[in-house]
Amino acid sequence: MDEFSRIATYFAPLATAKGALGLTDDAAYLTVPAGEQLVITVDTLVEGIHFAGDEPAPKIAQKALRVNLSDLAAKGATPLGYFLSLSLPTTCDEHWIADFCQGLAHDQKTYSLSLLGGDSTASKQGVVISITAIGSTGHMVRRSGAQVGDVLFVTGTIGDAALGLKAAQDELADAFLLSRYHLPQPRVAFADAIRTHATAALDVSDGLLQDASHLAKQSAVALEIALDALPLSQQAIAYGDNCEARLALATGGDDYEILFTAPSASTEALTAAAVDAGIALTAIGQCKHGAELQLSYAQKPVPLPAPLGYTHSS
Amino acid sequence: MDEFSRIATYFAPLATAKGALGLTDDAAYLTVPAGEQLVITVDTLVEGIHFAGDEPAPKIAQKALRVNLSDLAAKGATPLGYFLSLSLPTTCDEHWIADFCQGLAHDQKTYSLSLLGGDSTASKQGVVISITAIGSTGHMVRRSGAQVGDVLFVTGTIGDAALGLKAAQDELADAFLLSRYHLPQPRVAFADAIRTHATAALDVSDGLLQDASHLAKQSAVALEIALDALPLSQQAIAYGDNCEARLALATGGDDYEILFTAPSASTEALTAAAVDAGIALTAIGQCKHGAELQLSYAQKPVPLPAPLGYTHSS
Repeated sequence: MDEFSRIATYFAPLATAKGALGLTDDAAYLTVPAGEQLVITVDTLVEGIHFAGDEPAPKIAQKALRVNLSDLAAKGATPLGYFLSLSLPTTCDEHWIADFCQGLAHDQKTYSLSLLGGDSTASKQGVVISITAIGSTGHMVRRSGAQVGDVLFVTGTIGDAALGLKAAQDELADAFLLSRYHLPQPRVAFADAIRTHATAALDVSDGLLQDASHLAKQSAVALEIALDALPLSQQAIAYGDNCEARLALATGGDDYEILFTAPSASTEALTAAAVDAGIALTAIGQCKHGAELQLSYAQKPVPLPAPLGYTHSS
Repeated sequence: MDEFSRIATYFAPLATAKGALGLTDDAAYLTVPAGEQLVITVDTLVEGIHFAGDEPAPKIAQKALRVNLSDLAAKGATPLGYFLSLSLPTTCDEHWIADFCQGLAHDQKTYSLSLLGGDSTASKQGVVISITAIGSTGHMVRRSGAQVGDVLFVTGTIGDAALGLKAAQDELADAFLLSRYHLPQPRVAFADAIRTHATAALDVSDGLLQDASHLAKQSAVALEIALDALPLSQQAIAYGDNCEARLALATGGDDYEILFTAPSASTEALTAAAVDAGIALTAIGQCKHGAELQLSYAQKPVPLPAPLGYTHSS
């Protein structure tokens, strides 16, 4: 099957938006809703680096799409569509591609978006997936914008994926944690609340403390974080709950939750929005004058760990 | 040097657009000019497949960007910016990255656009470059839309890059042809003329005949092409000029010229626009009722070659 037949068979059915032109053209067009701006993000997953390669193909596809949707949600944007660049070694046969596209189809329904275009190439070694996701919003929430006095919130639970990676490596056995690692839950349903209330936001992907330090730096505020307040799942708590364990979870990657600041006056409305969206929401600290991050546990200061999270060496 | 320092040192200076936020956020924002629609395209280049890897890094960067700009120009769109996903093996050091970014900086000036965002990852083997380019236009020109009676035009010259590939493989020695293979000349300066006059258009990347067959199919017309009329460079002619040689050049890849149809009444205006832009423009055929492609040489029918161009096996 050549490239053109493969596109027509597997990818064209995913291109439901009018502007995708059924993947029959050189490019897609996009008309932007009046008064809205586009929010655009790119995330690339490489086999052997971001995923092992032996995961089921639908899950690989879903993770690649969801890490991008998580960025859009953190910016207060509603997804419109995405472009897919897929580089495949010869070991990925028609069945693999069909399964991969099934994963995309599933998530396109869940999150209401369309494939808009992309490119498909061979790969010399391993699968490389690069997704450019496009959303729209009246106002993109930045990493900058947090004000002294704002409350620091985080959605969901923290550290599950870091434990899930250990499960994937057979160091522990827990289906919930494993699924938190394989299948991020982008907080798309919370994007409106973020746009309405957040003064600054980002998605937690490289470790809560590291991402918090990015927000603090861009907003030029200090963030005081109570490690005791970090929302942990029951499953994570089962693997230990003390200061050291919480520091480990707060520096692990792949959470794909939203970390954001908002005025304390918004707490009630945010809590109601979280209940509506079925998403846990926890206040874990506040914005102050001073240095970038200040940690506490049991009301005592805790020195910053090093590193603060996952650092990409390249 | 970690990922964050590398982005700040080499890539942030390329992010000149306001919406790129200096690459300090999760995403970029883009405000679309009123009455315009966005045109978006993705092209991915893989080391060992689309380029050898021993080319100078600036040229690799420029080719990756230019193949995308060629798509935008063929759609009648003016480039706004691009997103870069760059997966690098450990063999690409700081110097390589600095050189790569120098190539991008050069082309950003030439074609007036900004880096908007992207992702940077490791690669298990070879460089993988995926670029999502975004342009805007009042009206995206499609592959469909050609009308019976329209004239078929092509910009520049055809077949140089196919011969240039042989030069890159040391099968022949010609600096001009080699540069036509390494450095496509996207016809950005002709995008306005395409938008104003073309009924259908695409960029020639997989071989003129193959791309012509795409246009014919999407427009549901026949294209009658006179092989004698194909514009060849002096350097290409030096390697032979007969029916067989012209068929070979018309089925070679990497031309990155614009193939388009327009009413014959537009010929004068198009010719003037081409002179203004300093781009060669040649009428090579016309749109008719009937089968997809009809070739002639010296006014005699020529059977279609197989394959019509470069077919991606994966």
